Amino acid sequence: MRLDENSKVLIVGLGLMGGSYAKALKRWGFHVTAISDQQSSIDYALQEGIIVDGSTEVDHALIAEADLIIFGLYPTTFLHWIKTYAHLIRPRTLVTDITGVKSCLVREVQSYMPKGVEFIAAHPMAGREVSGVENSDSRIFQGANYIVVPTETNTPEAIESCKRLGKFLGFERISVLSPEEHDEMIGFVSQLTHCIAVSLMTCSDSHHLVDYTGDSFRDLTRIARINDVLWSELFLMNKSALLRQMDKFLEEFSSLRDMLAQDDREGMQAKMRLSTERRSWFDQK
Amino acid sequence: MRLDENSKVLIVGLGLMGGSYAKALKRWGFHVTAISDQQSSIDYALQEGIIVDGSTEVDHALIAEADLIIFGLYPTTFLHWIKTYAHLIRPRTLVTDITGVKSCLVREVQSYMPKGVEFIAAHPMAGREVSGVENSDSRIFQGANYIVVPTETNTPEAIESCKRLGKFLGFERISVLSPEEHDEMIGFVSQLTHCIAVSLMTCSDSHHLVDYTGDSFRDLTRIARINDVLWSELFLMNKSALLRQMDKFLEEFSSLRDMLAQDDREGMQAKMRLSTERRSWFDQK
Repeated sequence: MRLDENSKVLIVGLGLMGGSYAKALKRWGFHVTAISDQQSSIDYALQEGIIVDGSTEVDHALIAEADLIIFGLYPTTFLHWIKTYAHLIRPRTLVTDITGVKSCLVREVQSYMPKGVEFIAAHPMAGREVSGVENSDSRIFQGANYIVVPTETNTPEAIESCKRLGKFLGFERISVLSPEEHDEMIGFVSQLTHCIAVSLMTCSDSHHLVDYTGDSFRDLTRIARINDVLWSELFLMNKSALLRQMDKFLEEFSSLRDMLAQDDREGMQAKMRLSTERRSWFDQK
Repeated sequence: MRLDENSKVLIVGLGLMGGSYAKALKRWGFHVTAISDQQSSIDYALQEGIIVDGSTEVDHALIAEADLIIFGLYPTTFLHWIKTYAHLIRPRTLVTDITGVKSCLVREVQSYMPKGVEFIAAHPMAGREVSGVENSDSRIFQGANYIVVPTETNTPEAIESCKRLGKFLGFERISVLSPEEHDEMIGFVSQLTHCIAVSLMTCSDSHHLVDYTGDSFRDLTRIARINDVLWSELFLMNKSALLRQMDKFLEEFSSLRDMLAQDDREGMQAKMRLSTERRSWFDQK
């Protein structure tokens, strides 16, 4: 199928991300429906006019009419849903997701797809420090990255439709990575940074420091407000890549610490010059 | 002396911070002069109209007419200047600084003051990732913290004048800490965060990751563009406090790493809940 404004889209899981998808797609005129275990989420989405129909049940009719099904569930919930209900999905339906880890999941999900149904993985690199459909906002996709994560079994058509979805959602940059490349990258730029922010915040009871913190401390700890259930699941599902990144960071940080302990001014300056040079690349984009 | 718009202010060291001070004070109508070793900095400041007079020499007349002298030099340069020229400062002059470390410096600087001259230390917690008077901007003080750092020998009048200076400069919060309290705090909220940002940036040649980084990586590494000469000096001058903070962070980060390695989901979640609770204090301010 070629994704366009006439496609019928079913979103399974109507939280912050599912809701933001619905809001973005509704603006284009897509026929959007939703399945959520929370009646209040369905009610909100119907009242806001961002879905035309919704159910708290695994509604066979909603599944059957969908051209595209987007899963906005936590990773283990997603996998459980697929194992239990994937047989209900009709041939020629395209299935995608928003999961933040890939290697441990994508090929298994693909293996449960009925004949004629294709699952193409994707990772929208956007979010907020709050959850729930009531906090959903399609503007979080502006300026953000959308990554299509195909395996060797995906068709060019599915990859193309998934890229088009990213464009409809309003992402700025859309790229393609293998599941393994994706997980190594995400271990570094996203999961490691969350580990650092959490550790910095748990270092001490810094209540009394609120009056003295400049921008740097606030910037480094913004993401320390974190959904503990979701992120511990993401960390565990990307364990080996994340451990590699954490160990590399430990090595670098310990090396800087030892230079300070040994009064190695030149060593510290060399590290600072390297970090300055590398960081400048990011400001050129 | 009571600081007001009729006071004559001499700024020694006309870089990013000295220039930003001059811009902020000039708006109030202060008579601002400057000493800088760069003729181009003096020329820029005269052309911009943010000083009325300036010299690349240690100008006796400029020093003699000043009611307030503000040192905007690097820590070791500052200390060297004081040792060499402090005798030129006239009685009843108030002297202050912008240095980012205090314990190792403040009492020594005070010991060199001639009779009748008072040095009151201060730390403006503001800056930019660029240097030089041409990049100076008084708006960097908006919303920022100004810390007055008196010792037991300072007078209430000098502390009050220094607080007034912070207000004239446009700082949002002005507080008072001892040199030791200041250094412990700054080791945590500023120096440790810079160590983390530098280490994260030196972890790997992340040139190819520019397309995939979300806000979190950019936020955590913004301060990785760093003045290597200044910051290595600041680190070394606050070595013991900074090492304590680095070791505490290493302990927390390693503990999170070990929880991941041991599949300790509940332990990770507890850390994330603690960090979320603590970070929320910062968003209430």
